[in-house]
Amino acid sequence: MTIGVIATLKIQDGKGPEFEAFFTELAKQVRANEPGNLAYQLTKSRTEPNTYKVLELYKDQDALTHHGGTDYFKAAGAKFGAVLGGRPEIEYLDGVG
Amino acid sequence: MTIGVIATLKIQDGKGPEFEAFFTELAKQVRANEPGNLAYQLTKSRTEPNTYKVLELYKDQDALTHHGGTDYFKAAGAKFGAVLGGRPEIEYLDGVG
Repeated sequence: MTIGVIATLKIQDGKGPEFEAFFTELAKQVRANEPGNLAYQLTKSRTEPNTYKVLELYKDQDALTHHGGTDYFKAAGAKFGAVLGGRPEIEYLDGVG
Repeated sequence: MTIGVIATLKIQDGKGPEFEAFFTELAKQVRANEPGNLAYQLTKSRTEPNTYKVLELYKDQDALTHHGGTDYFKAAGAKFGAVLGGRPEIEYLDGVG
């Protein structure tokens, strides 16, 4: 079953460019290395300042589990601490159809 | 610029199967006919009953505008009235990277 993820990330004022730079590099690695990842798109809210949402799709739970265990994801995780302005909200969704 | 959409749809109690049936047909048509659509995945909330989220990605605004004007999208729109339990929430997001 396809799994969807919406990760909402609030970034500190002024840290947007730094965040966007390392996150877009992360996204390239996800797309290049994870055949079970179907979408991994960073987006920015039009209404909430400093707020980003990552839209993610995985072909199944195994693909999502694999994603979280990659070296590049763990390395990016260490960089989040310097830019996050609050606790990330991660919503998991069950694919239909 | 990539455009993301999160469409949150609250469906009437007991109407889930009817909704899922016509929406998954709609999704097939979107994927088959819209090269500018990069993702169109129906998902179901794990926490909110009768609540679905559609995760959508388009390569640009033109692709999103085209999607809304297709005959099959308009035809599906007419079916929503029988199953929706509230006003849909449609969030538009600007792609980064």
